[in-house]
Amino acid sequence: MLSEFEKHLSAQDCLTNEAIRQISSLAIPSTLRRNQFVLRAGEICRHKIFIVKGLLRTFNTTVEGNEHILQFSPELTWTLDVESYDRQVPSHFSIAAVEPSDILLWHRADFNRLLAEIPAFKQLVDQIIVRNVYRSRQRMLTILSATPEEKYADFIQTHPDFLSRLPLRMIAAYLGISLKTLTRIRHAQLQR
Amino acid sequence: MLSEFEKHLSAQDCLTNEAIRQISSLAIPSTLRRNQFVLRAGEICRHKIFIVKGLLRTFNTTVEGNEHILQFSPELTWTLDVESYDRQVPSHFSIAAVEPSDILLWHRADFNRLLAEIPAFKQLVDQIIVRNVYRSRQRMLTILSATPEEKYADFIQTHPDFLSRLPLRMIAAYLGISLKTLTRIRHAQLQR
Repeated sequence: MLSEFEKHLSAQDCLTNEAIRQISSLAIPSTLRRNQFVLRAGEICRHKIFIVKGLLRTFNTTVEGNEHILQFSPELTWTLDVESYDRQVPSHFSIAAVEPSDILLWHRADFNRLLAEIPAFKQLVDQIIVRNVYRSRQRMLTILSATPEEKYADFIQTHPDFLSRLPLRMIAAYLGISLKTLTRIRHAQLQR
Repeated sequence: MLSEFEKHLSAQDCLTNEAIRQISSLAIPSTLRRNQFVLRAGEICRHKIFIVKGLLRTFNTTVEGNEHILQFSPELTWTLDVESYDRQVPSHFSIAAVEPSDILLWHRADFNRLLAEIPAFKQLVDQIIVRNVYRSRQRMLTILSATPEEKYADFIQTHPDFLSRLPLRMIAAYLGISLKTLTRIRHAQLQR
């Protein structure tokens, strides 16, 4: 699991082998069953999470039991609840595995030490945060402006590989449309 | 204009007077008329922007002429198109003044130099970015999950001071609901 992470970092082309070893030496490997939680809403997010294999989702469940999905995190990406991790307050969101997943965890203190000691790693992490900012702005605009048909078309285009990995109800919960609407859209497409 | 900015930075309690003077010495003061653009979609975002007085909005206009508002930026906040600024690619969004506004601009090269030379300023800017990330996650969740009534109630609670400063059509464009729906919600509330 660690060697795949090291290969991924090495491909970023900005870290020395020594730095990569240092980062990976503090990682805690863990595996998740399908639907297993790595963070529950109300808990404090104490780890940075890297997904080596599998797929996680960040979501919130309303008092009525409706699930809203903020983000899918596939292999070779990072995830966490940024507010909870940053301010050490209870998280508004849960993070759980959609598929059986292999992940790496870093304790916050360890991760902060790595950021302080390895400027190139800090720069890489900053870049990932900024890229997340603009991806989330783009997603916000799609949610605000698109019709359900456009939202689904955009999803297929942005994440073609997710379609076969996700139950329809999760795609609907991510797009902010009802399962009924999503089913209607897919049905209409198949008939064309 | 500069003295208000310096007072604001000083209140953050993390920068020396010398650092504050250095940051403000590179700021370019500018004023905007109502509806004047500071960035047009398709242009490259070349400046960090601080709003000293007034109110800006970041928005996108569809080919059909519909406006979708991503963000309002009131006095004593920063704004920019992060993707365009970061990667120096054409912006997907426009930024314009809702009210006559006083702003400060920094050229990207100048701002980057300040970040490199003043670690405490880099830390402050990083904090602002992270806070923006979790505000935008919260907003995404509201857009995904709330009914139009809840969206409006959330808006009033989060931004009580914006109500009197914004035309209704802009509030609707921010909430992702039609002007007709917003008018109906307000009418129903008045009748209670």
